[in-house]
Amino acid sequence: MTNLVTLDELREAHKRVTGAVVRTPLLPCLHGEPGRALWLKPENLQPIGAFKLRGAHNLVASLTDEERARGVVAHSSGNHAQAVAYTARRFGIPAVIVMPDTAPRVKVDATRALGAEIVTVTPDRRDTAAFELAAEHGYTLVPPYDDRRIVAGQGTAGLEIAEDLPDAAAVLVPVSGGGLLSGVATAVKALRPDIKVIGVEPELAADAAESLRTGTLTAWPAADTYRTIADGLRTTSLGTVPFAHVREYVDDIITVSESQIRDAVRFLAYSARLVAEPSGAVATAGYLFRRDALPRSGDHVAVVSGGNIEPALFAELVG
Amino acid sequence: MTNLVTLDELREAHKRVTGAVVRTPLLPCLHGEPGRALWLKPENLQPIGAFKLRGAHNLVASLTDEERARGVVAHSSGNHAQAVAYTARRFGIPAVIVMPDTAPRVKVDATRALGAEIVTVTPDRRDTAAFELAAEHGYTLVPPYDDRRIVAGQGTAGLEIAEDLPDAAAVLVPVSGGGLLSGVATAVKALRPDIKVIGVEPELAADAAESLRTGTLTAWPAADTYRTIADGLRTTSLGTVPFAHVREYVDDIITVSESQIRDAVRFLAYSARLVAEPSGAVATAGYLFRRDALPRSGDHVAVVSGGNIEPALFAELVG
Repeated sequence: MTNLVTLDELREAHKRVTGAVVRTPLLPCLHGEPGRALWLKPENLQPIGAFKLRGAHNLVASLTDEERARGVVAHSSGNHAQAVAYTARRFGIPAVIVMPDTAPRVKVDATRALGAEIVTVTPDRRDTAAFELAAEHGYTLVPPYDDRRIVAGQGTAGLEIAEDLPDAAAVLVPVSGGGLLSGVATAVKALRPDIKVIGVEPELAADAAESLRTGTLTAWPAADTYRTIADGLRTTSLGTVPFAHVREYVDDIITVSESQIRDAVRFLAYSARLVAEPSGAVATAGYLFRRDALPRSGDHVAVVSGGNIEPALFAELVG
Repeated sequence: MTNLVTLDELREAHKRVTGAVVRTPLLPCLHGEPGRALWLKPENLQPIGAFKLRGAHNLVASLTDEERARGVVAHSSGNHAQAVAYTARRFGIPAVIVMPDTAPRVKVDATRALGAEIVTVTPDRRDTAAFELAAEHGYTLVPPYDDRRIVAGQGTAGLEIAEDLPDAAAVLVPVSGGGLLSGVATAVKALRPDIKVIGVEPELAADAAESLRTGTLTAWPAADTYRTIADGLRTTSLGTVPFAHVREYVDDIITVSESQIRDAVRFLAYSARLVAEPSGAVATAGYLFRRDALPRSGDHVAVVSGGNIEPALFAELVG
């Protein structure tokens, strides 16, 4: 049985990330529904364009000086890569990022620009390649979600939500590997247990909803999850550490369609002046289109988790 | 001679607006130049999509209960209209907005949706119409910039910048009627006199640059200023109250071209995940393209003043 992340660990993590991440405000959205106000937590405004910085910074800041000086390695399809690269640059240590050859170019370029060394592999090789590099060079592996230091780091966003809107009815969070959802749920339930915490994922990558419903950690084939436009949410299953927290603290996981995700990207551009990537817009899609599965009234918070999107796709969605 | 807004007035204004406006963070931008870091003050994230809420709220909150209950009237081509409508709704008082028939539809619709009564007139009639409505119904006129309560309200953004980045080298601010520039300059110079405060306006509406250079408040013909894509900056001259502050506190006013403004909208979308309208992007354009007129090193802050843009134009600029 996994030991769950404690409120003390979350508070330690928050001290570590303060000054290294943006303390994002909660933004009231004028275009929510009467009696069901919408607030946005704009994690796309972090310097790398996504919440992932919170977890990566917390992990790297937790290392000993000696461990840290040897450098870090990570595998990621995108935002986690930039988070690790940015954090390494901030600490002045080497970073190697293993990327699948399917990663969007905007994310590859952005990671290289942050000074990381990029190693490109086929998607099936990325875990192995990262482990091999860690063993060979003494790098610390920074996992994208399956680690309690990552869960605690992402959870700092939940501490801020509970502090800023303690009487919220519900917090909606995108779910993929589950680092953000599990961290936010742990933080919110520790401080304000009456707030519902609800994961949102694409119908086409609904492994987490199935896992929560059945009580068994379930993986979907990558051939299925890779169909969604939400390229940050194609992970085939929750991590085991996140799943333990999700079972304990998450009230529900709901799904949204591809067209709902597209509409939410447009909504965020014109109703909140935020550039969101499809993965970053799923929680907002949940608010807009899944009221059947949400509290009937009260303040709703949607976490806008990222904003790194290819220009051609963004122009199409906002045009 | 105009009495200039004092630091005490700015601090009073900040108390009034706290809770009614978003305390926007300063966002570090990864795509600034080495040695000349770029920070963004995202006022486009205010609930109405622009900084104008600060001044409108400060003015309405300064009224007596009796004055306030009678209602307010304003004339505006856009963001000020939404600011007054939003503020009136928040206080539960009537608002009438006089709009030129040239105002972008997105701004007209948004103002009506906030519960204000809209009166449409030809551009030459808008001042007169607002005065007439005020006299007839006992409404308080809320001017868009030429009022010390408005200057003090907009200046609260400057207090926040000086608090968040006290060692900045320069703060760049869009300029039209001058409410935001004069308020920010007054606040920044009161707290951190070494920080340069620089106005930025379109080459096609460079009346303020001319006024500062000549020392004489100068108006440009609307036929000229209406050529710029930056529809929020087409005001033909600074207000007299802002001009007095600009002369005292602003270091320089620089200009940017139309293509530079367009590029800055795109830059903000992909490098900062912010939707900016052209007027909201001019300060960023100044940072990106007018380094000849700026400090050679140090932290630069660009105020992103608004984000209400027509979808067709936005899709064109980000495509």
